[in-house]
Amino acid sequence: MPIEQVSSTKVFNGWHKQFSHQSTSTHCSMRFAIFLPPQAQTKKVPVLYWLSGLTCTDENFMQKAGALKLAAELGFAIVCPDTSPRGDEVPDDSKGAYDFGLGAGFYVNASQAPFNQHYQMYDYVVDELPAIIEANFPVTKQRAISGHSMGGHGALLIAFSNLARYSSVSALSPICHPISSPWGQKAFKGYLGEDESTWLEYDSCERLKTLTDVKAYIPALVDQGSDDNFLAEQLNPQALKDAAKHINYPLTLRMQEGYDHSYYFISSFIEEHLRFHAKYF
Amino acid sequence: MPIEQVSSTKVFNGWHKQFSHQSTSTHCSMRFAIFLPPQAQTKKVPVLYWLSGLTCTDENFMQKAGALKLAAELGFAIVCPDTSPRGDEVPDDSKGAYDFGLGAGFYVNASQAPFNQHYQMYDYVVDELPAIIEANFPVTKQRAISGHSMGGHGALLIAFSNLARYSSVSALSPICHPISSPWGQKAFKGYLGEDESTWLEYDSCERLKTLTDVKAYIPALVDQGSDDNFLAEQLNPQALKDAAKHINYPLTLRMQEGYDHSYYFISSFIEEHLRFHAKYF
Repeated sequence: MPIEQVSSTKVFNGWHKQFSHQSTSTHCSMRFAIFLPPQAQTKKVPVLYWLSGLTCTDENFMQKAGALKLAAELGFAIVCPDTSPRGDEVPDDSKGAYDFGLGAGFYVNASQAPFNQHYQMYDYVVDELPAIIEANFPVTKQRAISGHSMGGHGALLIAFSNLARYSSVSALSPICHPISSPWGQKAFKGYLGEDESTWLEYDSCERLKTLTDVKAYIPALVDQGSDDNFLAEQLNPQALKDAAKHINYPLTLRMQEGYDHSYYFISSFIEEHLRFHAKYF
Repeated sequence: MPIEQVSSTKVFNGWHKQFSHQSTSTHCSMRFAIFLPPQAQTKKVPVLYWLSGLTCTDENFMQKAGALKLAAELGFAIVCPDTSPRGDEVPDDSKGAYDFGLGAGFYVNASQAPFNQHYQMYDYVVDELPAIIEANFPVTKQRAISGHSMGGHGALLIAFSNLARYSSVSALSPICHPISSPWGQKAFKGYLGEDESTWLEYDSCERLKTLTDVKAYIPALVDQGSDDNFLAEQLNPQALKDAAKHINYPLTLRMQEGYDHSYYFISSFIEEHLRFHAKYF
């Protein structure tokens, strides 16, 4: 499938570019952003996939995280997909809510009509997008994955479900246990239906519990702000910690005193996440 | 006048805060943002004032420039005012254009009705805001000033007109010579009237030409992207270079190959500007 360049902007001697393409997973036009570090002009570089949170597009992380300077130094690409399918033909939440439908794909493959035709974000992020990136850009097959909030859920879920595809995983303020979170419950009910047994394969804590091959485990880093408004009701890092402990999974969970859920939190710690991933590429 | 806290967010072990207050210059409620570095918890710190460009508020620079990490290391505050008065009672461009009225105060004191009642951004930035900052926060009277595009014009104009108030000035992609630029001409005509002789006091190049006290000059740094869409029509850095050369003003103007007018450009060079200002505090 061809991809079409939407924008190209020089930044830190590298390039921020946006592309759109017709997706075979979501059956609509998808836009993604890629940061190519200066090193990509002369050699292939590894890729960090970043999954954003509710309401975001491919732009939020690139504009607000303050990640590109260090990525340019360390020499890896960053790819940001959108957070849902979009377009006039894509169904949205019936009331236009921010936490379901457009901007809220939750990185699952929907089974319920009318969402199942386009909301196939799991397949898009796991298979289709990396294939596009690796076919069109000077990158290696070394991949890491990270994300924030809903995207933190996506990163952990996708990594724990596809350990061989990534060298490391991290998350900031992730929805750790969506089946116990109002956000996750609303999304999973809408995309996956009333039968809660079908939800388990998209819950990071439940995925962790199924892992048995210790040698396949990849390093995982999670940062959570202690003053995050969503911490008590939605995020549940303790469940993730318990699930990891149960199987001796190498997960580092850090509570960051006084930080909230915003990009000010992300920007304060993103460089530690980039250095973490660079270590394992 | 009391100031009211609107938000407070931890970032890089310092704090990003927003405040609103009734302004005696603009006769409306004004919002500003301040970044206080960790050092401000135990001592007074210098302040960099940042003036934003067309359509911006106090938020754009704080969210997108990637400046806070280094400001936290170097130990100075950053203050971002809004780019115009705002509110239901504040007149806007008759067609709601982005380049006049709300979000486009151009850092002048308007003389023309109906704008003269609220559009007094020069006085607000030069006098009122620093007085508020110095009365309410742990800061020294060491000040630097910088800005982007319309805010680059504002920074250069205000510094060259008040050399004793600042230790250094810088700008990225500034409107260097507004009386020769369509943006500047539209704004000055609307705020200052048809008599172009009244425009001269708000033009950085014209201000430079009036300077005579070599010992009062403060260091000036300007960065301009060579692929900036607005370069040819609006920005005119050559006029600034010529004016500086004419009086031997210590101005460094750098063309940055391949960069555009966006925050990707700002973020790529903002740390050099912060280090530049830190040198002269």
